[in-house]
Formats: sequence, structure tokens, C-alpha cells
Amino acid sequence: MRTPKVIKRLVDILATMPGIGPRQAVRLAFHLIRQGKSAQKGLEDAVASLQLVGICNQCFYIHEGEGLCEICADDKRDQSIIAIVEKETDLMSIENTGKFRGRFLVLGEFGRGGLLEADQKLKLKSLKSWIAKRFNGKAQEIIIAFNPDTQGDFLATQIIKELEGTAEKMTRLGMGIPSGGEIEFADEETLGNALERRR
Amino acid sequence: MRTPKVIKRLVDILATMPGIGPRQAVRLAFHLIRQGKSAQKGLEDAVASLQLVGICNQCFYIHEGEGLCEICADDKRDQSIIAIVEKETDLMSIENTGKFRGRFLVLGEFGRGGLLEADQKLKLKSLKSWIAKRFNGKAQEIIIAFNPDTQGDFLATQIIKELEGTAEKMTRLGMGIPSGGEIEFADEETLGNALERRR
Repeated sequence: MRTPKVIKRLVDILATMPGIGPRQAVRLAFHLIRQGKSAQKGLEDAVASLQLVGICNQCFYIHEGEGLCEICADDKRDQSIIAIVEKETDLMSIENTGKFRGRFLVLGEFGRGGLLEADQKLKLKSLKSWIAKRFNGKAQEIIIAFNPDTQGDFLATQIIKELEGTAEKMTRLGMGIPSGGEIEFADEETLGNALERRR
Repeated sequence: MRTPKVIKRLVDILATMPGIGPRQAVRLAFHLIRQGKSAQKGLEDAVASLQLVGICNQCFYIHEGEGLCEICADDKRDQSIIAIVEKETDLMSIENTGKFRGRFLVLGEFGRGGLLEADQKLKLKSLKSWIAKRFNGKAQEIIIAFNPDTQGDFLATQIIKELEGTAEKMTRLGMGIPSGGEIEFADEETLGNALERRR
């Protein structure tokens, strides 16, 4: 006996989702069964409501409805400062700091090849022409907000080249000892970065 | 900005599921959005198909339809050997060994209190009266197949008392060094069990 037939379809779908292995998929299916019909209906409806999700045609973040998302439509934000992020969750984390008042560009998850994919290049192109129209070709600042790892560094370099001349400043997020971290336990790379970027 | 409104309902539901934290819930929602409408519909339908799940009225395992599950309905299995398990997934693991030819009783997950809950007591009672009718009050063997931890040990003792006299033999799963494990790395408890249960 492998997975019981009656839950196999659900288990197979769950097991393809990020961070869910085959064992947890089975556990989740049994959890849903135990929760009963109304909880199952609740999940169904919540998945169905994803049909309402639209993608902002400027920053490619999600929102309800069509056209621009709340951030891009917000006149009180400084639209001439653009943070380029990989994932929607990176955008959310930056928003949660409450310290960024510009707009975003959500590139989409990086592939394994380490190169920009066609749709990511298109997004950069649309940013360029938006800057051309809106700010006469030069925004105030472009912040490349990628994870500080090999792939992030590599793609950041590519993008900085690609967008050359489109902003007064091109910056990357600060690197160093995380808040609450201990020098003693920082790896050499991190501590090296913290030294180089001291101020 | 916390979770975007348009996915909040789904995120909140996912985050209540076992092993899924709030961050993974958000990640899963974005994954589903990226997957597109047909994948979303697939998940909806798979959840909806849980309505077909029935509970066997003898062992309380799941199956499609009503009445007895495939295991309980199988005449070629030795119905006088009963393995009492906590969870459905424990039953599946035992079935996957291919070494058990009896039937099961699925008690349901143990609560935190460490005591049997009302519905678990009812299940034991129904087993007792089934043994009374079917085997004149005495089955061949009852195997308590709980995890070998404090709670499992405690409940096993309770159940052995509760079911006293209903089987020729009352056993528990063997304990010792796992297959492929190394004596050097076994904890004292495990190695102690392996010594006590040597044969």
C-alpha cells in the first residue's frame, strides 16, 4: 500500500509545492480530512479566490484588480527610487521595515542557470522605457535588493551594466553583521564585508 | 504592509496546517499564483474530492466509499491479529513493510494531556466487542504499535490494562538499533533497549 487512492490526487499536488515533501503531503491530506468538510470548503474557496489576483503592469507585484498596484499608484511615494527585488516576499520584507518610500520591480525567481530569463529581461526593458518617459531617462536611484550570495552578486553585476545611465545612483543593500548578531560567530565573508563597508 | 489582502485568506488557512509556518504559507500562495489558473483549479478539485473519503467503521482508517476498508474486508488477512496504531501514516508505514497480515485499529492522534480521549476509548470499546463477537472474546494477538517515547509507553500501558484478557498475546514493537544505525551513535536509551531485547 502506498498512498490511499482516495487522497492520492491531493497528495501528489501538495508534494509538488515548495518545501512540502511526500510525507508532509500525506500528513496534510489527513489533517484536512480530520478538519472536516467545512474546513475543506474554506480551503477550496480560498484557492478559488486567487482568480482575483492581478499583476501590476508596472512593478509586477500582485494586487486585487487591474492596472497599477497600491504602491505604484501611490503619489506620496517617491517613484524615482526603484528597488529591484527577486521575489514578492522580498518586496514584502522591505515594505515591513517601513523605511522604503520608493517603488519596486519584481523580477521573479532566478533560475538555476544563473542568467536572466527572457521575461526578466523584458521587465528590465519596461523599467528602462518607463524611466525614459517619466524621468527623461534618469531616475534618482536604483537599488538592487538581491540576496548577498554568488548568484545575487552575479546577476546584480549584469543588471547594473544593463541599466547603466538610467539612474543618478545605483546601489545595493548594505552587507555586514546582522542586528543582534555576534562578531565571534560571523563567518569570514560576512565579517570581511562588515569591515569593508564600515562607516 | 503585511500579507496582501488578496491572498490573506489562503495564507491564513495554510498557516494553520501542520508543519507550515506563516512564511511558508505566503511562499505557497505565491507559488500557486505563479502556477496559474489550471493548477489552482487542480488543487481545488483535489481538495473537493476529499468529500469521497469515508472512515472504515471497524478500524477507522480512511477509504473510498462506505462500510469496511480494503484491509478489514480482506478475507485473506488474519483478522485475529490486531495492530493498534496512533495515526493513519503509522498504518501506511506498517503496510509498506509488507510483513503484517492482520488488521488495524487507528486510535487517532494523542492529545497533549497524555490521556486517552473519549473517542479513543470508544474505539477500544468497539474493538473489545468485535473480539467478543468474532473470536468469542479472545483474539490471537494485539500489537500496540506506538512510537517508543514517554507518551507512547504510558498510553500503551493504559491500553494493555484496558484490553486485558482480550488476546492470547499482547505485544509491542521491537526496540533497538535501527537498521543501518551505528552502535557508537546510538543514545543510551536505545542501546539499553537493544541490550535488554537481544535474542
